[in-house]
Amino acid sequence: MKDFVIENISKVENPLAELNDIINTLNLDKNELLNLSLGDPARYMKTPNFVIEKYIEALKLGRTFYEDWSGNKKLKEAVAKRYKILYNVNYNSNDIIITQGVSEALQFTNTSLLSKGEKALIVAPFFTQYLPNILLEGATPIFAQHDFNNNWDINTESLIKTIKNCEKNKPKYILVTNPNNPTGTVPSEKTLKEVVEIAKDNDIFLISDEIYDELLFKDTKFTSVSKLARGVPHMILNGASKNLFATGFRIGFCIIPEEDKKSIELKNAISILCNSRLSANSPAEYAVTEGVIDTTKRKEFLNEALERIEKTSNLAYKLAKESRYLDVVKPNSTFYIFPRINLNELKIRNDKEFTEKLLKEQHLQVLRGSGFGMDGFIRLITLPEEQVVAEAFSRLEKFFKNNKK
Amino acid sequence: MKDFVIENISKVENPLAELNDIINTLNLDKNELLNLSLGDPARYMKTPNFVIEKYIEALKLGRTFYEDWSGNKKLKEAVAKRYKILYNVNYNSNDIIITQGVSEALQFTNTSLLSKGEKALIVAPFFTQYLPNILLEGATPIFAQHDFNNNWDINTESLIKTIKNCEKNKPKYILVTNPNNPTGTVPSEKTLKEVVEIAKDNDIFLISDEIYDELLFKDTKFTSVSKLARGVPHMILNGASKNLFATGFRIGFCIIPEEDKKSIELKNAISILCNSRLSANSPAEYAVTEGVIDTTKRKEFLNEALERIEKTSNLAYKLAKESRYLDVVKPNSTFYIFPRINLNELKIRNDKEFTEKLLKEQHLQVLRGSGFGMDGFIRLITLPEEQVVAEAFSRLEKFFKNNKK
Repeated sequence: MKDFVIENISKVENPLAELNDIINTLNLDKNELLNLSLGDPARYMKTPNFVIEKYIEALKLGRTFYEDWSGNKKLKEAVAKRYKILYNVNYNSNDIIITQGVSEALQFTNTSLLSKGEKALIVAPFFTQYLPNILLEGATPIFAQHDFNNNWDINTESLIKTIKNCEKNKPKYILVTNPNNPTGTVPSEKTLKEVVEIAKDNDIFLISDEIYDELLFKDTKFTSVSKLARGVPHMILNGASKNLFATGFRIGFCIIPEEDKKSIELKNAISILCNSRLSANSPAEYAVTEGVIDTTKRKEFLNEALERIEKTSNLAYKLAKESRYLDVVKPNSTFYIFPRINLNELKIRNDKEFTEKLLKEQHLQVLRGSGFGMDGFIRLITLPEEQVVAEAFSRLEKFFKNNKK
Repeated sequence: MKDFVIENISKVENPLAELNDIINTLNLDKNELLNLSLGDPARYMKTPNFVIEKYIEALKLGRTFYEDWSGNKKLKEAVAKRYKILYNVNYNSNDIIITQGVSEALQFTNTSLLSKGEKALIVAPFFTQYLPNILLEGATPIFAQHDFNNNWDINTESLIKTIKNCEKNKPKYILVTNPNNPTGTVPSEKTLKEVVEIAKDNDIFLISDEIYDELLFKDTKFTSVSKLARGVPHMILNGASKNLFATGFRIGFCIIPEEDKKSIELKNAISILCNSRLSANSPAEYAVTEGVIDTTKRKEFLNEALERIEKTSNLAYKLAKESRYLDVVKPNSTFYIFPRINLNELKIRNDKEFTEKLLKEQHLQVLRGSGFGMDGFIRLITLPEEQVVAEAFSRLEKFFKNNKK
């Protein structure tokens, strides 16, 4: 084993697994547990039928052989067209590599870019699973912040400061999640423009994970980094998991559109790694092609889903807002809400103790903010029906009452 | 970029892509090209119906959400049972991780084990795509040999010598392919026992890629390393791609059954990497579960497929044997044949020139042995009908005639 792998394995946190271990000791009846921890939309609403039908068609046609390592040609063309339609950005197929989810694109990026002792800069809070692969490459994740007091917009001062503190050992990339998991909000266009400038000025590769970019509530002003970063070395990540409620397909889009040395070298390395794993799931690629091409049907599906999610989210926001033990920013996208716990008023030291005790006492499973790089918060999903979320907040209030100072 | 990634990218060979580049310049009619280069059985015979039906069932049931990172519980149990039935080896579910193909298991193994300047030992000839990820970790592949003059059995002397030559910088693992791609043969039990002993004596982790272990011709005596290596740190790799003609599913089985420090550390690291990519394709796991459980239907399907493949293989062997320009070992498994070219009798310097010229002059696409770590050979697939292979050998003979000294 690599020394630093052994050393860094102990740093990998898994808040979900911690809680599942506790559940196994509780001997709960299945109906007693209220689980608001899983960011998996396909568990709450089925993958749209027009995509499933194409998947079945692929299987019936016998399209179960290896796809091209870089992905189904028609899918890549569809993804390029999608960016033209949604953001008026011009890509060609060669800018796009189909990966086994966004996570594979990031793993290959880390393998290509990160050596022992090097750094990767992530804007926190962030998706928990960004970290393990960085740590297993022997690298160190460092952080800038989203600002709770400014609707979770990116604090670009913190970004500049973090880069400055690195002196000559600059981070290999800046990673933003836009829209953000766990906050359920989108950074402003102004701020994203600043982020692009900062990346450019400091000559740091920019990565924007935009996997939730169509899960926007009414009137949300979303800006894709794809529009802002032309001419600057960058990568846009997207895929089928969230916008098509198809998490189990494992189909991601990795877009590296620029022609600078950094972009070309990274694309070469990722291409070689993709080639050596042969292909992504080929019938899933066939199905996702339809999901990306048929904007009308996708929007129809998403409108229905989002109407429901926004309703639940609004209720969760209202209940969190009303609670004296929680502070919260109103989500305008995704299916998460990320309230801050007023730990000062509770006989509980931190969010880890909070989520564990909440699970044991109220059988309510939510994830601790520290797992997303932000202490003192909890993440709840807003995918279930309103009454489920109402029940969750009722359990939370009971918990607060029993644990207040 | 990592320095060694840039440095090593240039060492990555891709014989198939080289030939495809040539094809693009030839302006061929599709029917003119005879392509015997793709080891993808799903292009020649459909994935068995009973597996496809289960896949469709999963999609109709809405089982498109994330699977557990380590794989579908029933699939892991089915894989354990398969090893009991086929090899009388006892595994439990926790010994098994479901990966996105064997390639992902190997990529995660390389990420966990290989640092810059370290070594990985592979018995050549070997599957081309073992190398790129090793090189991108900055490590150096080193080789022992299968012996052409001994029915491609493993030359254990070469294995011992290669390890001895490493002195203190011993390889991190020994990788054997059993049955072998590209030779289409299986090593003997006696030799495999020696390999296990060598791994044990030198304290080197042993990996056996057994993805073709049910593609055996009549009377082939195959020995799975799973039977021989109990008590020795090792990994068995298998999956759905070849035994279920389901290459596009991307479902692999990574089995690490021992409890020694090395095995536990490696399993931990692979688990963390699997966790961070969430899951493999979940409906495919559901389908493969049926494929693994239903031994009767699988054997029925394979018997039919193998009858055809063995026939084609026997014809290919006969024609290669008859040629004054080829020497060959009779394949007894897989769907490959790997003849040696008598370059001494031809106006051609090496196998690279051979395959390129063959493609240009005869429009026959086969892969060069040097891409599999063995100069002066060519790999042909024996998946098509007999008449296709007969046509290929007829083109080969024309080519020999036109290029003889």
